[in-house]
Amino acid sequence: MRKVKLGLVGCGIAAKTLHIPALKKLSELFEVTAVTSRTRAHAQECSKLLGGVEVFESYDELLKSGEVDAVDLALPVELNLPFIKKAVESGVHVICEKPISTDTKTGKEIVKIAESSDVVVYIAENFRHIPVFWKAKELIEKGKIGDPIFMSWHIWVGMDESNPYVHTEWRKKPKHIGGYLSDGGVHHVAAMRLIFGDIVWVSAVVRDISPLLGGPDFISSILEFESGVVGSYTAGYPIKGKDRFEVVGTEGRMVIEWDRIVLNGESIYVKPEDSYKLEFKDFYYVVKGKRENVLGSPLEALKDLAVIEAAVNSNGQKVNVGDLLDLEK
Amino acid sequence: MRKVKLGLVGCGIAAKTLHIPALKKLSELFEVTAVTSRTRAHAQECSKLLGGVEVFESYDELLKSGEVDAVDLALPVELNLPFIKKAVESGVHVICEKPISTDTKTGKEIVKIAESSDVVVYIAENFRHIPVFWKAKELIEKGKIGDPIFMSWHIWVGMDESNPYVHTEWRKKPKHIGGYLSDGGVHHVAAMRLIFGDIVWVSAVVRDISPLLGGPDFISSILEFESGVVGSYTAGYPIKGKDRFEVVGTEGRMVIEWDRIVLNGESIYVKPEDSYKLEFKDFYYVVKGKRENVLGSPLEALKDLAVIEAAVNSNGQKVNVGDLLDLEK
Repeated sequence: MRKVKLGLVGCGIAAKTLHIPALKKLSELFEVTAVTSRTRAHAQECSKLLGGVEVFESYDELLKSGEVDAVDLALPVELNLPFIKKAVESGVHVICEKPISTDTKTGKEIVKIAESSDVVVYIAENFRHIPVFWKAKELIEKGKIGDPIFMSWHIWVGMDESNPYVHTEWRKKPKHIGGYLSDGGVHHVAAMRLIFGDIVWVSAVVRDISPLLGGPDFISSILEFESGVVGSYTAGYPIKGKDRFEVVGTEGRMVIEWDRIVLNGESIYVKPEDSYKLEFKDFYYVVKGKRENVLGSPLEALKDLAVIEAAVNSNGQKVNVGDLLDLEK
Repeated sequence: MRKVKLGLVGCGIAAKTLHIPALKKLSELFEVTAVTSRTRAHAQECSKLLGGVEVFESYDELLKSGEVDAVDLALPVELNLPFIKKAVESGVHVICEKPISTDTKTGKEIVKIAESSDVVVYIAENFRHIPVFWKAKELIEKGKIGDPIFMSWHIWVGMDESNPYVHTEWRKKPKHIGGYLSDGGVHHVAAMRLIFGDIVWVSAVVRDISPLLGGPDFISSILEFESGVVGSYTAGYPIKGKDRFEVVGTEGRMVIEWDRIVLNGESIYVKPEDSYKLEFKDFYYVVKGKRENVLGSPLEALKDLAVIEAAVNSNGQKVNVGDLLDLEK
């Protein structure tokens, strides 16, 4: 199959440290033919990293150039909706960094745009491409811990001055709901939903602990999956510590780490892979019509975001995630 | 000071395995002078364990005998209210096993009875006498983890056929709210409140996992303390596992075990003591007017129970604990 000609839109940290390295590993699938960024120096930097790709002055020019089959959007979240809309209107496929949008209201517009068009709108959620989560799902479905009853995930991100994301302007004054709580949180929800299925409701508390991080930066919640599994999800962005993801069943338990699962006390190693590479590869096959857009489905990304929005709005109240998702509203 | 003459009322597992051993260690403070039980054989067994104490046919006879200054009630929970009432009417001091009552409604009656009388009504909550919890409180108040933000307690009791409590008739068909969830849960709430203060609200889910255990036997909750600390409390009564009690602050964290605190990675050992002995000793000094009834306060025990009742009734909804506590209602 012919390579997909890709235009890189936005040359921030995600583009430089996550997307470009992944795309370089997939040179048989993608040819990056164009790059653009609000800041020309950034675009030139990305162009250089890609071996001298044409820099466009504007997104509009890039879309109209005829040089791209698809665009890779790695932008401040609030730009996802207008940029996706333009790509779709131009008949150009899109892969766009999570979260899908700043909130479910605008996220729903993206879902509608995607549903009404033949071009691919793929929301890049790399946690749906992390092998250890699929292994955990498989082991649970095989009954290795009996009936799953409870999952608890404590995540201590430990972001401080040394973290480059902390200094991003759009993260300092977040327009996306809950700031880091959605920026990081949709990843966590994606993994939980991958393993346990849809989340029905959530009750949560949020806090703003660190002045360094824009917006709230701590969340603790209780939630229930459609399957009846109970979840306890806590994430502290400025707090350092060892993450702990545990699943308890009627006949056993597992601890999920990045490269292994400790199942009833025994380690099962799972080789980590470049999840960004996997997501671009998946996008390629979706664009080529060889795969359904399951893992990059805008609706799935919307569901991830809706759980976080429900949690951020909860203040201890039970919030039904479905109320936020209703596409008729 | 003269010994307190004590009548033991109820000769079940708690009396035999917890109270009598503790009282034997306190022979300079208490003289057990009387014993009674619905089942005479049980009373005789307890009498024997105590070296041949007089067995009374009924609680009424025991109260009227003039042989006791105080009674120790170790009964099915639903008997606490009428038995405490009778003791107070007879001018006899009471130490009564937790939970204070089957629910906060009847628990409030006990609080009122206690407040309107000069005799001591002491609710025995041994978790308020466990040294490691006081040490944790002290370390937190000294700022050893910065400002406390979050506490998480996962408790896996692992009760099975081999556990004697499982076979108690009144536990098989519990009249006390939430069954094991309050029977065990008031202990946990007492410890959390000891360390972090009062709990304002709770949102929780309960489950009935094991047919062996009467009533619901799993709870997971999120809650907020008056101080603003967020709590995540989970207890699974039929589920085996290693408990984990962790406190996270802005500048550190601690893990609380039974005989040590791991503070920022360093172990601080805390000598365990017989908490039943400590509670009887405290009761003695309260009866003698040498101490305020703080640790055995019926109101404190009621607050513990109210948190569990709020949680059991929650089904994910935010329930304000204060609504259950209002003594005017």
